[in-house]
Amino acid sequence: MANLILQHGTILTMDRQDTLYEDGFVVVDGDAITHLGPMSLMDELLQGIPETEHYSILDCTGKLILPGMVNTHSHLSMVVFRSLGDDVADRLKRYLFPLEKTAMDKQMALDGAAYAFAELLLGGVTTIYDAYYFEDEIAKVAEKAGIRGVLSETILSFPSPNADEPYGGIPYTKQFIKNWQGHPLITPAVNCHALYTNDREHLQECHRIAREADVIMCMHLAEMDYEQRDCLRDFGMTPVQYLDSLGILDARFLAAHSINLEDRDLEIYRDRGVKVSHNAGSNAKGAKGVARIRDMRAMGITVGLGTDGAMSGNTLDILTQLPLVGKIQKVSNNDRTLFPAKEILRMATIEGAKALGLEEITGSLEAGKRADIIILETDSVNMQPIYDPYSVVVYSANPSNVETTIVNGRVVMDKRRLLSLDMAELRENLFRHQDKIRAIARELDKKLPSS
Amino acid sequence: MANLILQHGTILTMDRQDTLYEDGFVVVDGDAITHLGPMSLMDELLQGIPETEHYSILDCTGKLILPGMVNTHSHLSMVVFRSLGDDVADRLKRYLFPLEKTAMDKQMALDGAAYAFAELLLGGVTTIYDAYYFEDEIAKVAEKAGIRGVLSETILSFPSPNADEPYGGIPYTKQFIKNWQGHPLITPAVNCHALYTNDREHLQECHRIAREADVIMCMHLAEMDYEQRDCLRDFGMTPVQYLDSLGILDARFLAAHSINLEDRDLEIYRDRGVKVSHNAGSNAKGAKGVARIRDMRAMGITVGLGTDGAMSGNTLDILTQLPLVGKIQKVSNNDRTLFPAKEILRMATIEGAKALGLEEITGSLEAGKRADIIILETDSVNMQPIYDPYSVVVYSANPSNVETTIVNGRVVMDKRRLLSLDMAELRENLFRHQDKIRAIARELDKKLPSS
Repeated sequence: MANLILQHGTILTMDRQDTLYEDGFVVVDGDAITHLGPMSLMDELLQGIPETEHYSILDCTGKLILPGMVNTHSHLSMVVFRSLGDDVADRLKRYLFPLEKTAMDKQMALDGAAYAFAELLLGGVTTIYDAYYFEDEIAKVAEKAGIRGVLSETILSFPSPNADEPYGGIPYTKQFIKNWQGHPLITPAVNCHALYTNDREHLQECHRIAREADVIMCMHLAEMDYEQRDCLRDFGMTPVQYLDSLGILDARFLAAHSINLEDRDLEIYRDRGVKVSHNAGSNAKGAKGVARIRDMRAMGITVGLGTDGAMSGNTLDILTQLPLVGKIQKVSNNDRTLFPAKEILRMATIEGAKALGLEEITGSLEAGKRADIIILETDSVNMQPIYDPYSVVVYSANPSNVETTIVNGRVVMDKRRLLSLDMAELRENLFRHQDKIRAIARELDKKLPSS
Repeated sequence: MANLILQHGTILTMDRQDTLYEDGFVVVDGDAITHLGPMSLMDELLQGIPETEHYSILDCTGKLILPGMVNTHSHLSMVVFRSLGDDVADRLKRYLFPLEKTAMDKQMALDGAAYAFAELLLGGVTTIYDAYYFEDEIAKVAEKAGIRGVLSETILSFPSPNADEPYGGIPYTKQFIKNWQGHPLITPAVNCHALYTNDREHLQECHRIAREADVIMCMHLAEMDYEQRDCLRDFGMTPVQYLDSLGILDARFLAAHSINLEDRDLEIYRDRGVKVSHNAGSNAKGAKGVARIRDMRAMGITVGLGTDGAMSGNTLDILTQLPLVGKIQKVSNNDRTLFPAKEILRMATIEGAKALGLEEITGSLEAGKRADIIILETDSVNMQPIYDPYSVVVYSANPSNVETTIVNGRVVMDKRRLLSLDMAELRENLFRHQDKIRAIARELDKKLPSS
C-alpha cells in the first residue's frame, strides 16, 4: 500500500454532489483516501499532514481520475469458454450447463478466475461480484490479484463442478463465510442460482444464512421467459411475488437481471429495499428483454451494472457496458435525454457499490473511503476533445484507456502492466485447457440444430 | 506501396464462401492482393512469382488478418464537437445546426477531418463515406492520410459553412466530381442532406448529377419522426414512397439510417436496388428507433454499417459498433440466434463495400482486389481465448486491438503508430479550436431547457 499524491488530474469524484475538480489532487495514505480537492487548496489542506515529502507524487496532468468501477454480476471462471456458443438458441440449458458439467474442474476454475481478475484490473474494475464454484480458492486468487471481491459459491439443486450432492453449495457457503468475513478485500455472500434451480426449502435456508451472517444474497431473478411462465403456472405468482411470499426479499437481496417485472414487482423491490444488478449487454445478447431500469431509478431502487459471465457478456470490464446501457434505454423508451452520461457513470461506480452493500468504503472518491481509484489517459485518439468528461468516459472510452488501477491503496496495474499478477503465466494457464474445451465444444456443436 | 507477404495469420477473408485460413498467407504486390491461401500451399502457389525474396515478410503468428472495415456514413469534421450535446432533446435543430453554423469554418473542418482519418486508420477502418463541407480540401487530406474515401459535399436549402447561397453544394459537387473521378483512393459522391432540407426540384437535380456521373447519391432517409410526419402531411406518402415517385431511388442510392420503414418502403428498396447504411449506435443514442435490418437482409437488401458523426456516434471506428448491432437486433426481435457474429462482420466489410459500390475493389480479401487489410493482435487480455475468431472480433475486440492497417497496399498504421499522419500535430490542431467551441457551446447550453 502506498503513500501517494495524485496531482493535476480532472477528478470525477462521483460523490453525492457529483463534485468535479478540473485540476485536482487526491492523497492516498495506506489503504484510504485522506484528502482530495482542487490543486489551489492543496497546500492549505495538507498543512496538518506530517512528512508529505515522503509521499510519491503521481503527475496526472491531462488525465481523468475516477473511482474504480464496480461489476455487480459475473461468473468469472467462465472466461475460459469465451467465444463459444454466442449465438445459440436456448443456450443455458443446451450448451452452457452441459459444457460446464463436462469440462469445468477446480484447476480450470482457478485459472479462469485469475485471468478474469487480470482483465478486470486492466479494464478499471476494482470491485467484482462473482458467483461460481471453488470460491474459497478463488478468494485466495483475488487476494493475490489485489482486487476487491464480493464472492459466493453457486447453490443449485444438482451436482456442481465442486459438489457431488445437490445443494452442496450450502454447507460450502457456511464455511466460506466463516473463512472470509472481516477480510479487508474479500466479502463473502450467498448465491442461489435461480428459482428454477432451487426449491422453496433451500431458498429459505439460504436467506437464513445470509440474514444471520449479515451478508448479501444474490439470485438470477426475472431473467428467463420459462422462469416467469413456470412460476405463474406452479404458484400463481410472478417470481418476485413468489420470493416475497417466502419472506426472502429484503435490503440484503441483490436481484441479477430483473427483466420481466410487473408494476407490483417493482413496488416490492422498492418496499423491501431490493437491489438490482443490471446486465445490459448480456440481457440484450440473450434476447431476454429490456429491463425497466428507468422505472426502477424513478422509484429509488438501487441499480448497479454487471457484465455476467464471458459466455454471456464476453468482456468483463464495465467501460464497454456503458454505451450499451444508455443507448438501449434511450431507444426503447423513445427519449434521447434519458440516462445522461453522468447518471450512467454513477451506476458504474457508487450505485454499484450500494448494490453490493459497500457504499461506505468504495464507489466514489471521498476522504475516509478506501482508495479504489482508476486513472484514464486522454492521449489516445478516441479520448479527445473533452468538453464533457462524463461523456468521454461513457461514450468514447474503452478499457485500453485505463492507465492505472489502485485497489485498497495498492497500485495493482500501471501503464497497462499488471503489478500483482504475471500476465504471461495467466495466458499459459488459460491455454492449457483449450484442447479439452475445444473437443467438448465440438461434440456439443454437433447436437445443435443447424442454423 | 509495399511488396509484402503476411504469413501465419488466421485469415478471415469474408469472401463469398466465408473462407477462413487458420494458418494462412496473403501476398500484397503494389496496391493489390495477388495471392492468398493456406501456408501449406504457399510455396506451390508462389512458384510463378519472380523475386519473392524481395518481398518484406510480416510474421502474423497468433494474429487475425481481416479486410479493412467500411464505415458507410459519417460527418468526419464534427469530431471537433465530440462530447457536446450528447443527451440533449431535439439536438439536431436546437444544438447541432446552430453550433455548426456559428463555429465551423474551413480550417476547423480540415483539422477535424484529419483527426478523424487518424481515428479511423487506428481503429481499422480503411474505407470511409463522408458527407460534410470543404470536401475538395478534405479529399486532399484523405489522400495524404492514405485512406479510401467516398466523399461528398452536403447539399441543403440554406447557407452552409462552405456556401453563402442555399444549395451552394450543387455547383460545388459538380466541380468536385470532375476533380476526383478516377482517383485510386477518392471516389466522389452526391449528398442531399435530407428530405426536410431539400426541395423536389433540387433533389431531382442531384439525382441527375449522380446518374450522369455514375456516382452514388446518399441521403439521410426515414430517420426522423418529423420527417415522416411532415412528408405524410405534405405529400400523403412516406419519405421513401415520395422519393420513389420522383424517380430518385435506384441502385446508386445509399439511404442512411432508414429507420421508419413500412413494408411497402422495404419493397421499394428491394425493387430499386437501394442500399442502406445502418447506424446502430447513433440511431439508438438518438432514440430514433430500431431499423428493420433483419427484414432488409431477408429481402436481399444490401446493409452496411456506419457510425454517423462523432456528436451522434462518438467514436468513428466500426469495431465499437459491432456488439451494438447484433445485441439491439436480438433483443428487439426476441431471438438470440439472429445476426450471428459472422454476419455482423460481413456487414462491417463486404456488405459495406457493396453499399458504396466498391465491392469489386475492397471489402474482402481476394486475389485481384486492392490490398485493404487490417491485422488484429490477440495478446491483449480481451482477445483470448479464441474458439471462434468471428465472435472474438465482434463481441470482444476494441479499436486498440488493431495493430496494423494497410490501405491500397500502403502500410498507413503499424504497431498503433500512424505512418501517414503526425498524431502530435493533429492533436495540436484539434486543440486550437477548443476555446472558440467551448464559448459557443456555453451560450447554447444556456438556451436549453434545464433537465
